[in-house]
Amino acid sequence: MAIRPLHDRVLVRRAEEEEKSAGGIILTDSAKEKPMQGTIIAAGHGKILTDGGIRALDVKVGDKVLFGKYAGNEVKVDGEELLMMREEDIMGVIE
Amino acid sequence: MAIRPLHDRVLVRRAEEEEKSAGGIILTDSAKEKPMQGTIIAAGHGKILTDGGIRALDVKVGDKVLFGKYAGNEVKVDGEELLMMREEDIMGVIE
Amino acid sequence: MAIRPLHDRVLVRRAEEEEKSAGGIILTDSAKEKPMQGTIIAAGHGKILTDGGIRALDVKVGDKVLFGKYAGNEVKVDGEELLMMREEDIMGVIE
Amino acid sequence: MAIRPLHDRVLVRRAEEEEKSAGGIILTDSAKEKPMQGTIIAAGHGKILTDGGIRALDVKVGDKVLFGKYAGNEVKVDGEELLMMREEDIMGVIE
Amino acid sequence: MAIRPLHDRVLVRRAEEEEKSAGGIILTDSAKEKPMQGTIIAAGHGKILTDGGIRALDVKVGDKVLFGKYAGNEVKVDGEELLMMREEDIMGVIE
Amino acid sequence: MAIRPLHDRVLVRRAEEEEKSAGGIILTDSAKEKPMQGTIIAAGHGKILTDGGIRALDVKVGDKVLFGKYAGNEVKVDGEELLMMREEDIMGVIE
Amino acid sequence: MAIRPLHDRVLVRRAEEEEKSAGGIILTDSAKEKPMQGTIIAAGHGKILTDGGIRALDVKVGDKVLFGKYAGNEVKVDGEELLMMREEDIMGVIE
Repeated sequence: MAIRPLHDRVLVRRAEEEEKSAGGIILTDSAKEKPMQGTIIAAGHGKILTDGGIRALDVKVGDKVLFGKYAGNEVKVDGEELLMMREEDIMGVIE
Repeated sequence: MAIRPLHDRVLVRRAEEEEKSAGGIILTDSAKEKPMQGTIIAAGHGKILTDGGIRALDVKVGDKVLFGKYAGNEVKVDGEELLMMREEDIMGVIE
Repeated sequence: MAIRPLHDRVLVRRAEEEEKSAGGIILTDSAKEKPMQGTIIAAGHGKILTDGGIRALDVKVGDKVLFGKYAGNEVKVDGEELLMMREEDIMGVIE
Repeated sequence: MAIRPLHDRVLVRRAEEEEKSAGGIILTDSAKEKPMQGTIIAAGHGKILTDGGIRALDVKVGDKVLFGKYAGNEVKVDGEELLMMREEDIMGVIE
Repeated sequence: MAIRPLHDRVLVRRAEEEEKSAGGIILTDSAKEKPMQGTIIAAGHGKILTDGGIRALDVKVGDKVLFGKYAGNEVKVDGEELLMMREEDIMGVIE
Repeated sequence: MAIRPLHDRVLVRRAEEEEKSAGGIILTDSAKEKPMQGTIIAAGHGKILTDGGIRALDVKVGDKVLFGKYAGNEVKVDGEELLMMREEDIMGVIE
Repeated sequence: MAIRPLHDRVLVRRAEEEEKSAGGIILTDSAKEKPMQGTIIAAGHGKILTDGGIRALDVKVGDKVLFGKYAGNEVKVDGEELLMMREEDIMGVIE
């Protein structure tokens, strides 16, 4: 079962807690630390411009990305919790 | 009795609770899980651009779509509850 | 006595309660069901664009339309209560 | 003493209460009915567009117009209370 | 000591209370009547457009203008209280 | 140690209290009078336009300017408190 | 482990407390003084324009920059706390 995100949205699988603990990159929060990196597993065709054109995304499937703690909406696909967010919510790509 | 949605609106029939329970895709909510997928049964001609032009929608009648819990307005057509929403409210298409 | 709506506004006569009860289309509300369909009896010339141009409306006099519960302003013309609303407030046309 | 409204503003003389009571057009309010029609007695040259151009108004001096209850600012000219409002506040023209 | 207002701003000297009382034009307020007309004593070169261009103002030094009660910022120049406001805050010109 | 303000920002040294007291220009506040004029000591290259172009500023280093009481952010440079603000926050130039 | 900021974002290493105390530049706050300068260690390709084009940033890796106290999001990279912010949050460059 596959999902095609619309426009400038991407579907992200969050990184597991353990894979981040050793020298990983995490966004901290005064309250508590929570995973905020993941891998893009599906991406839209691009952002709709005000003139009706489309701009291709700067991220692609497979990119490891950083995003804010409250970015996106949770989506459960085949029992797995994923995140649907906009490219705008992605702060950077881990290379 | 048919409805033609205006501009970038689509008319959606929500998926039944049971058809989602087996490996389906659902959007979760901390409070409770509620169906947030459906099928487009009517679509507008496209989004009005600021220059007066029109951009065709990226979804079409028959598409199975994901949308947010509070997306759209309920419309009762011939006794059936449907949802009228904007293309912008659709997060992705299930393929 | 006639009213010419300005720009992208239309004047709507709400459907009577009884004509909606038999297989009609109504917008539901958790509080109570109230008529939210009607017929356009006057329409403006079109929406003013940001460059000063005008875009003709996609609805016309005689169209049966769906609209939100709080759309428009009530106007009393020759003792009859009508609704003045914008094309944007119209969700769809009943065909 | 004359006032030249700037840009897309118009100066309106509200209709008297009595001239509206016989088959007239009035905007109703759940609280109470108040006159919301009037006659344009002065009009600006047009709306300033974002590119610096100007769009001529669709209303003119002498037009009888409908407007919302809270539209415009009261202005007292030679002891008479008038309303200064924008063309956007005008819902329609009575013909 | 002179002030050159920037862009679409103008410097206004408010009319004295007494010169308004005889058939003058005043903006009324349910709370109390306060002078809201004045004379432009300095004006900017024009409004900056979104494309970087400039649009000349429709008011000039010497114009008697009407403005809202809370328009502008008070500026004290050589002991005199003046108002610095934007052209947008000016409703009309008294001719 | 020098600071180059970015884009449409300028760095301002506020006028001393005493240099304003003799016939100077000050912005008044019902609470208390506080200095709100100063001299530009560094300026950005210009405002970024929505099309990516740049518009040169209408103020320059050395200009004596008027600004609102809460304009800008305080910056301490080599022990001196300066104000970093946008050209938009400047109401006028004292000539 | 490297991070590539997206679009108009930059990754900043905040200056240490001690290096600012001797004649340095700091932004003050009535509550307390906190470091608000740092060095850019990674930068995006540029800001996305509304027409889909891109504008190169006016700051680059190695620039010492001033920014507001609440600018950006904290990111922990290999155990070090960094700040991810937008070019818009940068007030100036220290030269």
